[in-house]
Amino acid sequence: VSGTFGADLILVGFGNVCRRFVRLLEERAEELRGVHGVDWRIIAIATGRHGSARGLRGLDVTRALDLLERGGSLDEIDGFGPAAMPALRETADPRVPASSPRSSAGLIGQVAAAARAAGSPRPLVVVETTVLDINAGQPAIDHVRAGLRAGAHVITANKGPVAFAHAELTAMARSAGLCFLFEGAVMDGIPVFNMAAAALPAVQVEGFSGVVNSTTNFIITAMENGREFAESLAEMQAAGIAEADASLDVDGWDGAAKAAALANVLMNAGTTPQQVERSGIGHLTVADVQGAVAKGRRLKLVARGRRTGSGVTVRVSVEELPANHLFSTLDGQQNALVLETDLLGDFAIVQLGGGLTQTAYALVTDLVAVARAARHPLEP
Amino acid sequence: VSGTFGADLILVGFGNVCRRFVRLLEERAEELRGVHGVDWRIIAIATGRHGSARGLRGLDVTRALDLLERGGSLDEIDGFGPAAMPALRETADPRVPASSPRSSAGLIGQVAAAARAAGSPRPLVVVETTVLDINAGQPAIDHVRAGLRAGAHVITANKGPVAFAHAELTAMARSAGLCFLFEGAVMDGIPVFNMAAAALPAVQVEGFSGVVNSTTNFIITAMENGREFAESLAEMQAAGIAEADASLDVDGWDGAAKAAALANVLMNAGTTPQQVERSGIGHLTVADVQGAVAKGRRLKLVARGRRTGSGVTVRVSVEELPANHLFSTLDGQQNALVLETDLLGDFAIVQLGGGLTQTAYALVTDLVAVARAARHPLEP
Repeated sequence: VSGTFGADLILVGFGNVCRRFVRLLEERAEELRGVHGVDWRIIAIATGRHGSARGLRGLDVTRALDLLERGGSLDEIDGFGPAAMPALRETADPRVPASSPRSSAGLIGQVAAAARAAGSPRPLVVVETTVLDINAGQPAIDHVRAGLRAGAHVITANKGPVAFAHAELTAMARSAGLCFLFEGAVMDGIPVFNMAAAALPAVQVEGFSGVVNSTTNFIITAMENGREFAESLAEMQAAGIAEADASLDVDGWDGAAKAAALANVLMNAGTTPQQVERSGIGHLTVADVQGAVAKGRRLKLVARGRRTGSGVTVRVSVEELPANHLFSTLDGQQNALVLETDLLGDFAIVQLGGGLTQTAYALVTDLVAVARAARHPLEP
Repeated sequence: VSGTFGADLILVGFGNVCRRFVRLLEERAEELRGVHGVDWRIIAIATGRHGSARGLRGLDVTRALDLLERGGSLDEIDGFGPAAMPALRETADPRVPASSPRSSAGLIGQVAAAARAAGSPRPLVVVETTVLDINAGQPAIDHVRAGLRAGAHVITANKGPVAFAHAELTAMARSAGLCFLFEGAVMDGIPVFNMAAAALPAVQVEGFSGVVNSTTNFIITAMENGREFAESLAEMQAAGIAEADASLDVDGWDGAAKAAALANVLMNAGTTPQQVERSGIGHLTVADVQGAVAKGRRLKLVARGRRTGSGVTVRVSVEELPANHLFSTLDGQQNALVLETDLLGDFAIVQLGGGLTQTAYALVTDLVAVARAARHPLEP
């Protein structure tokens, strides 16, 4: 490839997804370096509860992962002290504004400035995977803003920034010649956003429909088999698939955020999850769900977006679908998205399996996409 | 965008697909030029039965389309005579070798040489849409070879070249710094090959399964509704959807060619349609098809590829699938492809609508992909 893209990564959030991402980079290093011309160092890791570490010549990632597995703190790593990089939890402190160097957003600027001061010409990439507040998309949005302001590309597994602030953040990135990418926001690493950007030139998306929340689909499937709502939900939570705060999934907030993200990116809707007409599955009983099955139908929580005369309407609601509908074939955590287009008619992308690796892989595809764009900065 | 890609197009074959392609370029000209930086002139059109035309400064396409609609010949267009560009039908003449300047392959070299001699620095793109001989992939393969040899990128809606000679043609293209693209070979313009190239870095495809032949799916669907095989086939042929030589579809040759194409591109199988274990739908009766439905199942002609210890095995055969299988939701001409991958698990792409525009659009995406690659010649 024409010149390797050797990035310095700033990891903001270092939970399961980001740890799997880092391991995935190592597992596929040969192909990423050899075929895709992507190389990387991790120069900072900031977490909310496990300390932070900085090493402008590249951190020893194996050591960082080991430390955390032993229950240690990243603060133990040499060359970095908590005074120089405050832990991410301070973002949640309303007394610390995003503009403060003591905020998690502020520390992104700090690391970037330190890297520049050390004379590094390497491009910076912020990898954002913090825990999302679905009501406002924070602190992820502040992290994206801070990264772009500091001259870093930003890739995130969070749906918040694109669901709440796609237009603003995309405009910021474009004017700075930087990337803001978020493949993992919907259907994990299954190609949706990067596919649309790369492989659908001149196609207009007129609408979409999708089953995009795994937890509600799993619960409804379990209820079809006679399991009570609460029992299925508890099982998902025990498995770490559903959030402890189940309302995000059950009340349709996660679906609404994904619907807003899809509408914003694919249809330029400029909407937010709050503006999505939303209902959840909390009202469903086993009798409801099995009643549909008895009629040869299935209930699904469906997200829909559609262009209208006045803009784009987006909603999330339970729909009763015929047995031969594509969405009726989805069991458990499977997802599907139908895009309604002008030139290609309707077509669908279906996620038949899911898990941590898929979500982490979304960040790998985003990093490769950044490398491609960075080699050719004016590419659309 | 960083520099417009202003291509000179050589259209080899000018049937319905290519005519729709040319109109589509005009319909989306503003976006293609403004957003994607793709500009074009058509400097030659060669057909098998409607003459040929050359105009190194750009042909008047509207005039060419009008001529053909009035039943005229492209030979009537000024500045070009049949002696300078023999009609494509000569390729079918076994006495004219592909190396002859009087063959259709030879004329590609002729036009390219004339464009160079006229001092044009514009990149050349051969747009290959001739009628395919499924037994050998010809004359499309010769056209791709001739295009690449003449220094032209080649895009084709034909599945033959990629089904029979993917490794050879891709190696030729790479060593010359040129593109050989074929999005339309499977599922028309629905993103498959360009999606995989752009959005699946570091992913290994372990296998695939697909319903990829529209005619057989339409016939089986009609038989489920009690229509006889021959009646449904005749209807498809009258509508211009099935070929006059129905054996290509019915005996599974089209499916085998698509399966070979998928195996070659996604799994580097180095196979050909003849090597695909193949059976068709010719043996099916209405009783067979309705018998499956009575059991709550559906028959589908399914193409499968799978990595084994010794390589890749590929087959096409009728399978009886449960009602809740993704493929069982496909009616009429709908297609679907499941990719089995290491990092992303299984995921599917489903074509819910089809038609001429979708096939023609595949060439548009290929042209945009050529433009991207040509700006950055060493991109993987």
